[in-house]
Amino acid sequence: MTGYIQEDIDPAELVRRTAVARELADDVRALVAATVVTDVDDDAVVEARRHLAAARSILETKRIDGAFGVRFNSDGTKRAWGNAVVGERNPIAPPVDLEHDGERVWSEFELGPQYEGPAGLVHGGVIALILDQVLGSAAEHAGVPGMTGTLTVRYVRGTPLGAVRVDARLDRVEGIKSFVTGELSTDTGVCAQAEGIFILPRWARGEVSDQLRRSVGEG
Amino acid sequence: MTGYIQEDIDPAELVRRTAVARELADDVRALVAATVVTDVDDDAVVEARRHLAAARSILETKRIDGAFGVRFNSDGTKRAWGNAVVGERNPIAPPVDLEHDGERVWSEFELGPQYEGPAGLVHGGVIALILDQVLGSAAEHAGVPGMTGTLTVRYVRGTPLGAVRVDARLDRVEGIKSFVTGELSTDTGVCAQAEGIFILPRWARGEVSDQLRRSVGEG
Repeated sequence: MTGYIQEDIDPAELVRRTAVARELADDVRALVAATVVTDVDDDAVVEARRHLAAARSILETKRIDGAFGVRFNSDGTKRAWGNAVVGERNPIAPPVDLEHDGERVWSEFELGPQYEGPAGLVHGGVIALILDQVLGSAAEHAGVPGMTGTLTVRYVRGTPLGAVRVDARLDRVEGIKSFVTGELSTDTGVCAQAEGIFILPRWARGEVSDQLRRSVGEG
Repeated sequence: MTGYIQEDIDPAELVRRTAVARELADDVRALVAATVVTDVDDDAVVEARRHLAAARSILETKRIDGAFGVRFNSDGTKRAWGNAVVGERNPIAPPVDLEHDGERVWSEFELGPQYEGPAGLVHGGVIALILDQVLGSAAEHAGVPGMTGTLTVRYVRGTPLGAVRVDARLDRVEGIKSFVTGELSTDTGVCAQAEGIFILPRWARGEVSDQLRRSVGEG
């Protein structure tokens, strides 16, 4: 299985690689949206598919074994480039670029036609997908990383495709469980609210307890 | 906003169009996976991007206004081709091809590297995304279609990328609320369990009540 990999890449080189990965993913993401809404005739589709086959053949010449995994660099940064929500080189990710300040994280981004559920609206499951990641990131930034134990999403109203905003913050910590709340909204208000319970992994329990005491006041 | 569209396409023509859409989406989906795991050098990425730009330019020559929407054909079939989970021409959808029998729906499919969360594991949010759709489809097949009101997912263990199975069934109906349960599993057992509450839309309340009495025994 793809694992957690420690790498030793020069920070400047990492900046360059990030830009390359991001440009490629942006192109494929635009192609994903174009595929959903194209209205060209069959001959044009055949012609487009020839280019897609050529691109794929180039990209598949050399590939990582398994999935991308999660990689840590010697400068302390973490790369989860394959992540379905925040991954720099994952074309299914919007991607969500999170900003954070202590126990709060947030982001503003656009959801295109590939995220549709009911006609013209964001798929309820896409909202759950994004909120799961954003709530998990809030737990991580608050010093209590974890896998999702339970995620509950309450849908307040339909979310039109287009510009959205997500917010999340750590609510409280009870033993190995972190309770995080968040919401997805548009400029007309909150569309969905979520609560996530994240479970501190075994490997982090010793290491995190001091930080917990400092940042959350429990111990 | 993209809406619910009534179309009058000959069934044979619809079969042909479905095949064309599906092939194109399959190609782009393979390209999405290749983008996540490629390890080619920068020159090869530049060359691949030339083909991607050419394909995109062809597909964008003529496009649907807005998102795909949900289209009903004169033969009674429904097309939600833009749907992020089951959409025939949505490359971010696995896609999940649901089978159904009364109030039960299920499907078996593969989740590739673009659905990663923790290293080598399916993103918890992707599991929520898929279960939201599958539970909603179970409600629809049971005669009580609805928008998601609340979705709760409980994660039992990590789900390795690869082959998965989903199952869902209508549990009960209380007034305008349908309670649906389901799970995602691999051949080693259940990885996540979900409960969804789906709210019958206003337009369906009159129409569905008779069917409800027949199929669920309430009224």
